[in-house]
Amino acid sequence: MQALKNRTWILRRRPEGDLRNDDLELVDAPMPTPGEGELLVRNIYLMIAPTNRVWMSDIDQYMAPVGLGEPMRGMTMGVVVESGNPAFRAGDVVEGPMAWQEYSIVRHARRVPLQHGLPLHAYASVLGSSGLTAYFGMTDIARPRAGETVVVSAAAGGVGSIASQIAKLHGCRVVGIAGGERKSRYVLDELRLDACVDYKQGNVLEALRAACPQGIDVDFENVGGEVMDAVLALINVGARLALCGMISTYNATGDWWSPRMFRNVIMKRARIEGFLIADYLPRFDEGVAQLAEWVKAGEIRYEVDIVDGIERAPEGLNRLFAGANVGKQLVRVAPEPSL
Amino acid sequence: MQALKNRTWILRRRPEGDLRNDDLELVDAPMPTPGEGELLVRNIYLMIAPTNRVWMSDIDQYMAPVGLGEPMRGMTMGVVVESGNPAFRAGDVVEGPMAWQEYSIVRHARRVPLQHGLPLHAYASVLGSSGLTAYFGMTDIARPRAGETVVVSAAAGGVGSIASQIAKLHGCRVVGIAGGERKSRYVLDELRLDACVDYKQGNVLEALRAACPQGIDVDFENVGGEVMDAVLALINVGARLALCGMISTYNATGDWWSPRMFRNVIMKRARIEGFLIADYLPRFDEGVAQLAEWVKAGEIRYEVDIVDGIERAPEGLNRLFAGANVGKQLVRVAPEPSL
Repeated sequence: MQALKNRTWILRRRPEGDLRNDDLELVDAPMPTPGEGELLVRNIYLMIAPTNRVWMSDIDQYMAPVGLGEPMRGMTMGVVVESGNPAFRAGDVVEGPMAWQEYSIVRHARRVPLQHGLPLHAYASVLGSSGLTAYFGMTDIARPRAGETVVVSAAAGGVGSIASQIAKLHGCRVVGIAGGERKSRYVLDELRLDACVDYKQGNVLEALRAACPQGIDVDFENVGGEVMDAVLALINVGARLALCGMISTYNATGDWWSPRMFRNVIMKRARIEGFLIADYLPRFDEGVAQLAEWVKAGEIRYEVDIVDGIERAPEGLNRLFAGANVGKQLVRVAPEPSL
Repeated sequence: MQALKNRTWILRRRPEGDLRNDDLELVDAPMPTPGEGELLVRNIYLMIAPTNRVWMSDIDQYMAPVGLGEPMRGMTMGVVVESGNPAFRAGDVVEGPMAWQEYSIVRHARRVPLQHGLPLHAYASVLGSSGLTAYFGMTDIARPRAGETVVVSAAAGGVGSIASQIAKLHGCRVVGIAGGERKSRYVLDELRLDACVDYKQGNVLEALRAACPQGIDVDFENVGGEVMDAVLALINVGARLALCGMISTYNATGDWWSPRMFRNVIMKRARIEGFLIADYLPRFDEGVAQLAEWVKAGEIRYEVDIVDGIERAPEGLNRLFAGANVGKQLVRVAPEPSL
């Protein structure tokens, strides 16, 4: 197989601000061979997430940044082509921390739990890291109670769309925050949230205040910046803010955003708690089973936003920062196999 | 008794920045008479706390600000002179939300639990709101585990001095932050903490980094500002930040301080949680009993910093903001009775 090429995105330069064309380079890498304990995987989906942008920056974060000259790390899903691990064999569908490339070598892959009988892109979205982030962030960190007001920012996105529906299933009044007419309609008509604040329409604070006449008890935060500042100004006593992401600030140069109205954390005896989905790995089966049940019962809807072709991976990431995607952003590198 | 005068501090103007002389006025108010269910209390101690300054500001907070022209609210301790409540009688020692004045009327007072056999100023400090704030904030919010590194800011103050010793009793490495040579010596020699960072000596971040070679697992935060920014930069995965106060910002005009390195709340999966001692009222007996046991066993030391005379109440408050006090700041309005 050494003659085959393996198109791979290499990080060439640390982006300053928005990702630019020559920060990454698509190269023809040689086809890799798996060593003992490793798998060779043909990638089908790159699961694009805002945190991919963070990995490009040389800052203290939850794992090492991607090194310059290295393949761009990504969570991907694919089919095992060759296995050096007796627990897997060719044809298995796996996901894990691999890279933006056509074929990856991986040591720590997770078998995709196909028994739930849904299309593969469901496992790359609502039953994958995004859905699990929503599930554990909402049920374990935010812990909404029936009748409470829950705000979810980036409510039309891959995580927010699931998190907000989970809060609805808990009997809450759920207010989404999203950008633009199309996403607002999606939030109201498809996700069936109680209200949607379009942050592109002007004063987020006043719009959010109007949408939350009883104040805010829970915030599932994906955005940070002005949006979270508005939330902090409106929280009730005992509020919980599950800090999932701060996409508004990932492209910042220099310091990241600092929250205003931080005093309300004391005044309202609030809890702000950050979390990462990787910490919940031992409980993934529980989360997938619950999400699959909700999806099959029609209680949770999901959307995927697919761009085709490895060459479009950076475009996929930029769609998140431009607010272009509805639902989970995927880059399809190869066709879905028939399951 | 109507002929007697009752010297009372009245809030005349909302302070801008530091408290100024004519923000408050000491007047000769008439002696009040308790109605049904009320007590007339001769105040002995005004328990001075940074939050008193917040009450003077017209901002959304955890209770209504003090109104202009009204007596300055304060937690005080005193002796019942006349009781309109059958559960209390003259001579009882009580504490509660009263005012900076010689005599107060109060409806919701708490009987001071004198059975622990300590001097009255102990009940106004280590066994009062300050000690209980330290106790519940550390054991219930911060929850340190043996071997962890705990940072306590304002470590020589009324709350921090107790909180830091409680963390020592949990088997932690405890690093205090305090201002100046005298307070640093107190923290090391009397409180017996493992290290003390003198924030007046320059670079807090680098000094704190040196004092916390294993990073920071728990922060008991009384100060905010540059001090908490340094803590946020050094926290470990799973850190807990019990947000008790932010004295560095209470005198601010306009916006309060916004924390930098807020991204670490995600990167380190940290929890920042605000709390107020009033929420723990149902558990006060538990806290007082534990603190009294520690004090009597010599495991917790405490200090009170007393200024004498109702006319010096604003000076008492200013001592907190100038960092002049060691231990709990009290204003003594009348002599301690013999118990």
